[in-house]
Amino acid sequence: MKHFTTVHDVKNIDSLIDDALLLKNNPFTHQHLGKNKTLGLIFLNPSLRTRMSAQKAAMNLGMNVISMNVDKDGWALEYEDGAIMNGNKIEHIKDAAAVMGTYCDIIGIRCFPNLQNKAEDYSEKVFIKFMKYCKVPIISLESATLHPLQSFADLISIKETWKQKIKPKIVLTWAPHIKALPQAVANSFSEWMLKADYDLTIAHPNGYELSEDYTGGAKITNNQKEAMLGADYVYVKNWSCYNEYGKITAEHNDWVLTKEKMKITNDAKIMHCLPVRRNIELSDELIDCSNSLIIKQAENRVYAAQAVLKSILEKENIITQKINHEEKLANS
Amino acid sequence: MKHFTTVHDVKNIDSLIDDALLLKNNPFTHQHLGKNKTLGLIFLNPSLRTRMSAQKAAMNLGMNVISMNVDKDGWALEYEDGAIMNGNKIEHIKDAAAVMGTYCDIIGIRCFPNLQNKAEDYSEKVFIKFMKYCKVPIISLESATLHPLQSFADLISIKETWKQKIKPKIVLTWAPHIKALPQAVANSFSEWMLKADYDLTIAHPNGYELSEDYTGGAKITNNQKEAMLGADYVYVKNWSCYNEYGKITAEHNDWVLTKEKMKITNDAKIMHCLPVRRNIELSDELIDCSNSLIIKQAENRVYAAQAVLKSILEKENIITQKINHEEKLANS
Amino acid sequence: MKHFTTVHDVKNIDSLIDDALLLKNNPFTHQHLGKNKTLGLIFLNPSLRTRMSAQKAAMNLGMNVISMNVDKDGWALEYEDGAIMNGNKIEHIKDAAAVMGTYCDIIGIRCFPNLQNKAEDYSEKVFIKFMKYCKVPIISLESATLHPLQSFADLISIKETWKQKIKPKIVLTWAPHIKALPQAVANSFSEWMLKADYDLTIAHPNGYELSEDYTGGAKITNNQKEAMLGADYVYVKNWSCYNEYGKITAEHNDWVLTKEKMKITNDAKIMHCLPVRRNIELSDELIDCSNSLIIKQAENRVYAAQAVLKSILEKENIITQKINHEEKLANS
Repeated sequence: MKHFTTVHDVKNIDSLIDDALLLKNNPFTHQHLGKNKTLGLIFLNPSLRTRMSAQKAAMNLGMNVISMNVDKDGWALEYEDGAIMNGNKIEHIKDAAAVMGTYCDIIGIRCFPNLQNKAEDYSEKVFIKFMKYCKVPIISLESATLHPLQSFADLISIKETWKQKIKPKIVLTWAPHIKALPQAVANSFSEWMLKADYDLTIAHPNGYELSEDYTGGAKITNNQKEAMLGADYVYVKNWSCYNEYGKITAEHNDWVLTKEKMKITNDAKIMHCLPVRRNIELSDELIDCSNSLIIKQAENRVYAAQAVLKSILEKENIITQKINHEEKLANS
Repeated sequence: MKHFTTVHDVKNIDSLIDDALLLKNNPFTHQHLGKNKTLGLIFLNPSLRTRMSAQKAAMNLGMNVISMNVDKDGWALEYEDGAIMNGNKIEHIKDAAAVMGTYCDIIGIRCFPNLQNKAEDYSEKVFIKFMKYCKVPIISLESATLHPLQSFADLISIKETWKQKIKPKIVLTWAPHIKALPQAVANSFSEWMLKADYDLTIAHPNGYELSEDYTGGAKITNNQKEAMLGADYVYVKNWSCYNEYGKITAEHNDWVLTKEKMKITNDAKIMHCLPVRRNIELSDELIDCSNSLIIKQAENRVYAAQAVLKSILEKENIITQKINHEEKLANS
Repeated sequence: MKHFTTVHDVKNIDSLIDDALLLKNNPFTHQHLGKNKTLGLIFLNPSLRTRMSAQKAAMNLGMNVISMNVDKDGWALEYEDGAIMNGNKIEHIKDAAAVMGTYCDIIGIRCFPNLQNKAEDYSEKVFIKFMKYCKVPIISLESATLHPLQSFADLISIKETWKQKIKPKIVLTWAPHIKALPQAVANSFSEWMLKADYDLTIAHPNGYELSEDYTGGAKITNNQKEAMLGADYVYVKNWSCYNEYGKITAEHNDWVLTKEKMKITNDAKIMHCLPVRRNIELSDELIDCSNSLIIKQAENRVYAAQAVLKSILEKENIITQKINHEEKLANS
């Protein structure tokens, strides 16, 4: 793996899951890979799970970690090419990314969308520019449109708990929230489930359609009850509108997930990426019940990140060995 | 030791002091204990000494450290069970603590009181909930009511400097301050001195009584001069009222400690937990004189934390070995 | 080396450069030196390159790192001796520095000038006090008047790219900016180039004279074109007035460096310390052209810091060995 910003960066999803589960059993067996390697974690937005799990994953592999809260520890970045920088942005991403690339072997970046301008957010300009200028492998710690480490951890959690031969029925159901949230987790969950060839149903109120770029292949319905029928896994998540971009067009408090609604499922496991607004998105009794995978999903963030870092380090290793070998040949 | 939130978590205070002094002489001899273990440091309030000394202690033991400024790097937490989370708290402590527990082997937390509601502060709800939900050992980096790592470092500092067979006379004297401060350091110092069976006198102006839960067994007086007579150690500290909770009922600037007042002591050592308001709590000449133990106390914070971490890691080790042994028996 | 706050702390500048270049080729060969040593990084101001490169340098040497954003993670410091601390400063630098010195083997500090009071800024009171009270070696991460790690990295970058026997012609040219900036980079670059015995020309508009304490020995002109003639290296940097202290007396937008102006140089390399205001200080086409050393300079910050840390650790090592040897003799 070179970069990790979407499921499409993963060559073999099954072997990556297997790797994560092996690392979960033996987290410290690959510390030679990370020795003297530095992971830079660049936060343009707040983070708890991602910050801690990525750091843990890197340390498990013997890596060093440098964390930067760019807006607080550093400074505001300019993203426009050719900008005459006479405003409050004091460094261009061209320069900041290039410099960070000289200090780190791999860089993780978190950058939320602003939810004001769909074209800009969905162009992923921050990630594209970072990748272009920093020249080292980039890991998404959640971008404007995707959250692949979360979705990979979700997939690991399903894999760990599903013991039947037939594939499970997965439901992603929209939930109410008091704030306008990105579509990143929903987009990303959809593309990972579909790539894993799972039976995915997405339920949301009218107006909350996601981009078909991510959901193509899933069943889509505005009827939550219909979706839940026979579900094996129910993933609960709010997102703001994609079409009326970034808006909360209606509140739909009747979409909160309750114990009553779970009765028609196949004793489904309950999933959420956290942080969760308790009793707004879903009820306390569901979050805290034995069918909840929520803490397991968070725990698996470590092994998702670790499998991704390991894969990138191994590829870098092969490249370095190849260069060394060619240099030896050239010198001999 | 399982948790460390009060002196009552310590089984044998003398052997813990001995351990700290051994570690001070040879700080790097137990790095096998901390290898691949992670200490999470969770700050809900600012910190200098505690942040640096806890990190140093963990690194001396070979541990990895992840620091989180929850309010700045992460987000505001909800503490009420059953809350309908439609306000500005975006994650419940139940979920945040449970997740952190999956990333860390030991967690240190700092959480000051709000000084508005005595019952709430003295219930230590943040600590109780963290301990309940995170499931790993918890170390207090200062709670609403206690600061045990400080008091342990204070005790080490006394032990290092007192060479006589009879126990020293210890005085804790209230000092003026411009802000309402917690009672945590005073409560904690009292319970540690009494547990160590020292002769403790607490002097404070009328109205600044501490809770008897911590001071029971100490001599208590409103006469600073009487308290100082023949003292071997004088600990200077401000606290706000416990009875008229969190209030500064009167300023008592005559309680500032001066060189003149020290004359009737037994050439006493001067102690303070830092940060100190110079020339408000006590005078420059006392802080900077050769009898001052203030920098030594701060230095000993490392070895206090290290002895506590070592004790917890050793207990965890024994539990792991026992589980492994039982698994082997079961499999054989 | 004991402290590193100016070029005058360096005994042999050529051997320090050689050391940095050796470390650049083999960064991980001296990890025994840093083992169980702690570098404290104390930031009183924001930092990106310095924060990341110093941390990387320390980790390359096997050191532990503790970073503190004093104003955010800790608290505001009082600097005046004898202050009655009844304001918003909650700890005196005397105490904070002394404590940090007990936790760290080496301390790096960043502290910008306030540009209000020349005498105060140029007295370097923060650095002087830190050095006085913390008792461990101090590294400047940029002070009120100097930025020696930057200048050392600049010198390494020149050394790497200049292959002729005769010394190159170096030009430091003032550039426009929208904010009043310190003189630190310009002062420091001047004293390093002069110490290295390079031919240095400083060009700036009338009114932007630097202190002769740093520039004595350089050619100084108000004619940018004249300075550029035949230049081998052009260092672009804004600074505010030294005489009318901290002021921008005139904007001089005609001083922006352009491709046209470079024509009369000897195909000169272009240098800047970053962050750069693109198209204000110099044009995109110059920053991004093949003659630009700007990213190299930033990259070399790691090896500048690493050579300095190595030199300090080696000196500390010798002192420790000497003490151990003397103790052995005394005990034998």
